[in-house]
Amino acid sequence: MESPSIGVGTRVWAFAHILPGAVIGSECNLCDHTFIENDVRIGDRVTIKCGVQIWDGVWLEDDVFVGPNVTFSNDSHPRSRQRPAAFERTLVKRGASIGANATILPGTTIGERAMIGAGAVVTRDVPPLAIVTGNPARIVGYEGTGARDGGQASAAPDGAGAMATLVRGVTLHRLPEVIDLRGSLTFGEAENQVPFPIRRYFVVYNVPSKEVRGEHAHKTLHQFLVCLHGRCRVVADDGADREEFVLDHPTLGLYLPPMTWGIQYKYTEDAVLAVFASDWYDAKSYIRDYSEFLSLVAER
Amino acid sequence: MESPSIGVGTRVWAFAHILPGAVIGSECNLCDHTFIENDVRIGDRVTIKCGVQIWDGVWLEDDVFVGPNVTFSNDSHPRSRQRPAAFERTLVKRGASIGANATILPGTTIGERAMIGAGAVVTRDVPPLAIVTGNPARIVGYEGTGARDGGQASAAPDGAGAMATLVRGVTLHRLPEVIDLRGSLTFGEAENQVPFPIRRYFVVYNVPSKEVRGEHAHKTLHQFLVCLHGRCRVVADDGADREEFVLDHPTLGLYLPPMTWGIQYKYTEDAVLAVFASDWYDAKSYIRDYSEFLSLVAER
Amino acid sequence: MESPSIGVGTRVWAFAHILPGAVIGSECNLCDHTFIENDVRIGDRVTIKCGVQIWDGVWLEDDVFVGPNVTFSNDSHPRSRQRPAAFERTLVKRGASIGANATILPGTTIGERAMIGAGAVVTRDVPPLAIVTGNPARIVGYEGTGARDGGQASAAPDGAGAMATLVRGVTLHRLPEVIDLRGSLTFGEAENQVPFPIRRYFVVYNVPSKEVRGEHAHKTLHQFLVCLHGRCRVVADDGADREEFVLDHPTLGLYLPPMTWGIQYKYTEDAVLAVFASDWYDAKSYIRDYSEFLSLVAER
Amino acid sequence: MESPSIGVGTRVWAFAHILPGAVIGSECNLCDHTFIENDVRIGDRVTIKCGVQIWDGVWLEDDVFVGPNVTFSNDSHPRSRQRPAAFERTLVKRGASIGANATILPGTTIGERAMIGAGAVVTRDVPPLAIVTGNPARIVGYEGTGARDGGQASAAPDGAGAMATLVRGVTLHRLPEVIDLRGSLTFGEAENQVPFPIRRYFVVYNVPSKEVRGEHAHKTLHQFLVCLHGRCRVVADDGADREEFVLDHPTLGLYLPPMTWGIQYKYTEDAVLAVFASDWYDAKSYIRDYSEFLSLVAER
Amino acid sequence: MESPSIGVGTRVWAFAHILPGAVIGSECNLCDHTFIENDVRIGDRVTIKCGVQIWDGVWLEDDVFVGPNVTFSNDSHPRSRQRPAAFERTLVKRGASIGANATILPGTTIGERAMIGAGAVVTRDVPPLAIVTGNPARIVGYEGTGARDGGQASAAPDGAGAMATLVRGVTLHRLPEVIDLRGSLTFGEAENQVPFPIRRYFVVYNVPSKEVRGEHAHKTLHQFLVCLHGRCRVVADDGADREEFVLDHPTLGLYLPPMTWGIQYKYTEDAVLAVFASDWYDAKSYIRDYSEFLSLVAER
Amino acid sequence: MESPSIGVGTRVWAFAHILPGAVIGSECNLCDHTFIENDVRIGDRVTIKCGVQIWDGVWLEDDVFVGPNVTFSNDSHPRSRQRPAAFERTLVKRGASIGANATILPGTTIGERAMIGAGAVVTRDVPPLAIVTGNPARIVGYEGTGARDGGQASAAPDGAGAMATLVRGVTLHRLPEVIDLRGSLTFGEAENQVPFPIRRYFVVYNVPSKEVRGEHAHKTLHQFLVCLHGRCRVVADDGADREEFVLDHPTLGLYLPPMTWGIQYKYTEDAVLAVFASDWYDAKSYIRDYSEFLSLVAER
Repeated sequence: MESPSIGVGTRVWAFAHILPGAVIGSECNLCDHTFIENDVRIGDRVTIKCGVQIWDGVWLEDDVFVGPNVTFSNDSHPRSRQRPAAFERTLVKRGASIGANATILPGTTIGERAMIGAGAVVTRDVPPLAIVTGNPARIVGYEGTGARDGGQASAAPDGAGAMATLVRGVTLHRLPEVIDLRGSLTFGEAENQVPFPIRRYFVVYNVPSKEVRGEHAHKTLHQFLVCLHGRCRVVADDGADREEFVLDHPTLGLYLPPMTWGIQYKYTEDAVLAVFASDWYDAKSYIRDYSEFLSLVAER
Repeated sequence: MESPSIGVGTRVWAFAHILPGAVIGSECNLCDHTFIENDVRIGDRVTIKCGVQIWDGVWLEDDVFVGPNVTFSNDSHPRSRQRPAAFERTLVKRGASIGANATILPGTTIGERAMIGAGAVVTRDVPPLAIVTGNPARIVGYEGTGARDGGQASAAPDGAGAMATLVRGVTLHRLPEVIDLRGSLTFGEAENQVPFPIRRYFVVYNVPSKEVRGEHAHKTLHQFLVCLHGRCRVVADDGADREEFVLDHPTLGLYLPPMTWGIQYKYTEDAVLAVFASDWYDAKSYIRDYSEFLSLVAER
Repeated sequence: MESPSIGVGTRVWAFAHILPGAVIGSECNLCDHTFIENDVRIGDRVTIKCGVQIWDGVWLEDDVFVGPNVTFSNDSHPRSRQRPAAFERTLVKRGASIGANATILPGTTIGERAMIGAGAVVTRDVPPLAIVTGNPARIVGYEGTGARDGGQASAAPDGAGAMATLVRGVTLHRLPEVIDLRGSLTFGEAENQVPFPIRRYFVVYNVPSKEVRGEHAHKTLHQFLVCLHGRCRVVADDGADREEFVLDHPTLGLYLPPMTWGIQYKYTEDAVLAVFASDWYDAKSYIRDYSEFLSLVAER
Repeated sequence: MESPSIGVGTRVWAFAHILPGAVIGSECNLCDHTFIENDVRIGDRVTIKCGVQIWDGVWLEDDVFVGPNVTFSNDSHPRSRQRPAAFERTLVKRGASIGANATILPGTTIGERAMIGAGAVVTRDVPPLAIVTGNPARIVGYEGTGARDGGQASAAPDGAGAMATLVRGVTLHRLPEVIDLRGSLTFGEAENQVPFPIRRYFVVYNVPSKEVRGEHAHKTLHQFLVCLHGRCRVVADDGADREEFVLDHPTLGLYLPPMTWGIQYKYTEDAVLAVFASDWYDAKSYIRDYSEFLSLVAER
Repeated sequence: MESPSIGVGTRVWAFAHILPGAVIGSECNLCDHTFIENDVRIGDRVTIKCGVQIWDGVWLEDDVFVGPNVTFSNDSHPRSRQRPAAFERTLVKRGASIGANATILPGTTIGERAMIGAGAVVTRDVPPLAIVTGNPARIVGYEGTGARDGGQASAAPDGAGAMATLVRGVTLHRLPEVIDLRGSLTFGEAENQVPFPIRRYFVVYNVPSKEVRGEHAHKTLHQFLVCLHGRCRVVADDGADREEFVLDHPTLGLYLPPMTWGIQYKYTEDAVLAVFASDWYDAKSYIRDYSEFLSLVAER
Repeated sequence: MESPSIGVGTRVWAFAHILPGAVIGSECNLCDHTFIENDVRIGDRVTIKCGVQIWDGVWLEDDVFVGPNVTFSNDSHPRSRQRPAAFERTLVKRGASIGANATILPGTTIGERAMIGAGAVVTRDVPPLAIVTGNPARIVGYEGTGARDGGQASAAPDGAGAMATLVRGVTLHRLPEVIDLRGSLTFGEAENQVPFPIRRYFVVYNVPSKEVRGEHAHKTLHQFLVCLHGRCRVVADDGADREEFVLDHPTLGLYLPPMTWGIQYKYTEDAVLAVFASDWYDAKSYIRDYSEFLSLVAER
């Protein structure tokens, strides 16, 4: 406990060792056999369980939980007695939790309220709210959503039509389908099945299964998503409520109004996602930072 | 040669037998060992090679060619001495040719200038201009088109942009593509890459590989075709010129202006064809008869 | 018309040629350009359309229909001027029909009331009632059955239980199924779901898709069929009525009582058909001749 | 070493920390840098290597081995400073071993004498005697069995017949097979190839590859297992000896007499396991607890 | 029978029609309802069964057999009353047989002693001795060979070593194989397992399954063939004896000495055939005409 | 710090525990919460980060880096209080690095300068210079090579010919290819495309994807590698420079002169690697120890 910068109400347990440069907030809990190096910033109300080291370059924001024997590192190509010019930074953002014995590679950012599974080996950035597990870690879900399987669950409209969801303004649509011996056909008309004028389409394909797309909101753009081949999942989030949808048939459309945070993931290898948009492309329409999104939602 | 209704200049060869009810046009050629029943109509300038029987219910329009030993029938479920209530009709339209030893099942229509390959067994209608072979017969091409492989041939635009084709007003488009580690994205904007306002989309999928779709023209509708998964072929025909295109990539678009006869076929099992249209659905927009199409084109 | 053995009421048309050894029944119809060799037996009420040759060794029973340009042969390895020691025999049984331009290889037997499709090339024996098409010809159905798709059609019981069929005594059973995270389980108890004591099971697998199995009835044996993997079709026939069933799920059982003629065909490559039987194996239990089966049924 | 409840002969090494509520048996070994919380029960002769924490809710029975840096946890959804209403319980049963650096998720039970591989991440219950490895951990074998590959190993009967195994009363059977051009057929007759009357069959299918089925014994029921498609493995255990069999062909049957503990696992995706049983279903026949099974075996 | 050029001993049957330009050899047999056009050459001892037409441009060499209703044609793109500038030539070489009702497309050559199956539709040249069936016709075997399955048949050497075959000088070799956990390895040393110095290798791959390669002999070159992936068949022929081999494993080698006619066919899609040769490439080494090969063999 | 055998300049941090039998070199760094048992040898300049135990039987050579919470073990089948007769040895060779929280199973050797990824579970020996990650750990690359994709990268010759590489004497060859409708053919002639006389070929196949082959050099042998099916990677190393090549087409050859260390890995399941060699097999030609190879290179 060599550091002078430890906040009020922070508890440090037995056999812990804190180097003098570390800055630690208030109401934290540092358990037995922990080790805290110098270039470290730890926010308020952080829990660090036994057997954890926080190396130079690792910063933890408020309300982070670090499970027992979680292991950070700060050199991605270590050789004995060869100190890198600068240590890579690892940032764990507000409210994230890291499960027991997980390994966090250097240079990664773990998003707000993300959940790292026990034993996971985190090799790349983790988005806000994502749940990751495995070695290497992959996203398996998002906090606070309940998956809805559009093709099978009774919750999706059986006949052509639309239904409300848990997320403000988001609607799930069953589009018309005409099947005969020559194959199947589905369609949507602008300002009819697709509830806005169509000024643009875009198509996403060849997505590696581990990848996440979307992760942004639009200020004024309306979108309508249809997965024309294969399958993907879409998380829609209005800042308060969140729901996960499986798009797995050309007749299943998902309408996202403006100011909806959207995430697409778990693409099958052969997935083709078509998106119809209410306007031409405008880079200024995008909100790409989740904190900014939350602020804008709060202002409304 | 019992029939009194045989046109001027028609030649009938040795060992042929024509029943009295048959009506045969002028300048025909009926070779050795042919047999013509009563309820038969044969147009002008028809060739019937050796060993062919034309049964009650089989009608041949002008300029038809029937190869040697071609076999028609007029009862799809024959039992000895059980005469059907009425014979099924077979119609071979103007200018069609039937290759040597082909078999034509009863009740079929063979379209104008279609070409039936030698030895083919025709079990269903054959569209105008189609070339069919095999047992059962399948469409392998269309008369007068040169296939153009959109994904490979140098004729398709390499960079984003459009190029003219052999068919009046039809253009082939290479759409923009953005590729990164998260997958690929292509897009089209209305009145920009897609050269008209988009009021409707439709998607065709689950097409059995032997099926043909399209086979019609529109009086005023503009269409833009993109094959988002798998591969299909499109024949475009302005009434005078004809060209065949392979659509095999989400970035390859085909624009069909009004008054273009379009045929889609050779879908792969996994093909998904998206079509953008300039107007809402209107059944009256369709021209479904090729002869009517040719007349309308001629009037313009 | 050199033969003295032609029955009463038989018509022979123009350009036909009958060698003296042929024996032809009454009420037949031999059309133009036919040729009948010597070692030929033709029953009563047989139709032979134009362009057909009946070679030495080909025998046609009563009520056979031979379509135009149908071609028989009697030497499976012909070389010019090398006459085989004996011609192979071809037998077309009572009531069978051969479609236009079909080819019949030497040495084949075509069963009673079988239907050979136009243009088919028949390379092996054809069972009674079978419908065959293609080159080489394959069985595509059976005369007088309506296929019933057990897994999808509403006609199959949805919940566990049994239902009657069109065939006397044959019942279609939906067996209980228990599904949980560890997989699925179905079962049948003797004298309960399986309506007899079980003294034997047998399993059929690795069936080439073109093959037909079964084609027999049992005098006293009860059988219960379940397709445990893949899919096959079963035709059940009580001598008067006939029905075709698709077995495509482990929970779909078909009960065949004694004196039911059964045929299994259209096995998928991976099909595994399990049969439970009410008694140990007894070769004397089998009725393998369809005519004998019909006689025994008639006696009851 | 704050706890008063530490058994005779237990050694506690340097830098270890034991909270006062913990109850620890005799002859244990707690190595350097270990931490033991309050709601903890540790049996006799337990080894806990360096760097391990035993949290509230984790109980270890007698003779358990916990390797170095093994990490337990007791909250499956941790957030900093949000204490769950009750900690989830983890139970490690008698004689189990946990390899170095393994991670054990909260709420799991690890069965008697199970072996957790080094580095494994255990996310679900582990059966008695099972060996698990990987992230997430999967069963890769069972302690004390030698796998016998029924289809290939010379140990399986080549011709039809039965052979003894290492396990009391269990026999491995090669069933008759009849192969011809129409496919293959195998069979078993009750009280003949199947050594008991057959009163019931059941079929297991659609088993996810990671699942284990069986894991029970029957007091009086005889069973005969045949894998009709795909492949699975069966472990048979008479309480003293244990052997593992691969069932991979319809002609390979495994007879399990009463009082045999049976486990089925490593199902291929397409596996179909048929089981014939000597009696109707009776829930009371099952012994589902391995300890109870061992007691009942001992009584005999 | 208008032609003056008909050889001695040739029989012409009823309702046949021969145009004056035809030239027909001696000892032929022209059956009922045949038709022979003008630009036709027919050799000696040719059999033409009923219902066959021989059109302008079709030439038949000595000893050809043409089955009943076999159909030739001489215009590959027929339209009524549009006579091609020149008819395409069809040549049926010495000793070939054409089965009943086969269709021969114009412009094809059918090689010496080839056998065309009944009902086949021949769309491309047929090599000497080949047996073809189907629509379109594919090679299914070669006259006078007995297939030997190298990987399974007991005839192939089990242990490393070579064995003689039915063909002069051709030997079948089992090469050494070393299998361990890291995979398998096989080898051949020049002048040891490979019985000549190696001066060249070549590799054949991506062969469409319908294609035939080889079909030539070498005057002085030694070759050693090994199929390193997939499977293909090789026919070896010394002019007197012929044998067919299946190469389906990297350890199975086939040695072809000089003056061996070799044919490779029935390549699987993934087949890779490696050939080691005793000399550098020399185009003059090839004998590509089977008749020339037979002459050269006879001279030896 | 009970050991008397600790070298000059070695630092030992807080809460560390060193048993008296350990021998530790100079200039080492042993961080907090480490534990060093007795039968341990640690070289000079070794770094051991926090939370690591070095058990009896684990030896670390000079310049090894051991990351935080790395876990060794010395008993592959641990049971509490059952001490093995002898502990298995683990050897980490000169210059190797072990990433954070990795697990090293007992009995493994980690080669010189190998790099073990964070969180990896090492279950088998790791070759010199190899980079491994995952659970279980697999080789993902080699230190100091840049992968060159032979089939796609512009660096490979487009037309037939050879090009130099970064490694002394190693050349990459594009071989001639002849493509026509009958398939593709490539070839190489001895002393021409293959730059030496060919006295032997060997073929490697059925390589499990996790396996590495090669890992040796030859004193005088020349080799030429072509991957005839599938794909594999080859690392060539002259002792100073190293380069990795992808062989993925039959026309891409890699020449390795004598005194080149070669490694082959990342075989696809269907890979077939053919190697042509300049001499017959001679076991004495092999250099199988990388250190010996480096010495021999240095002598030249």
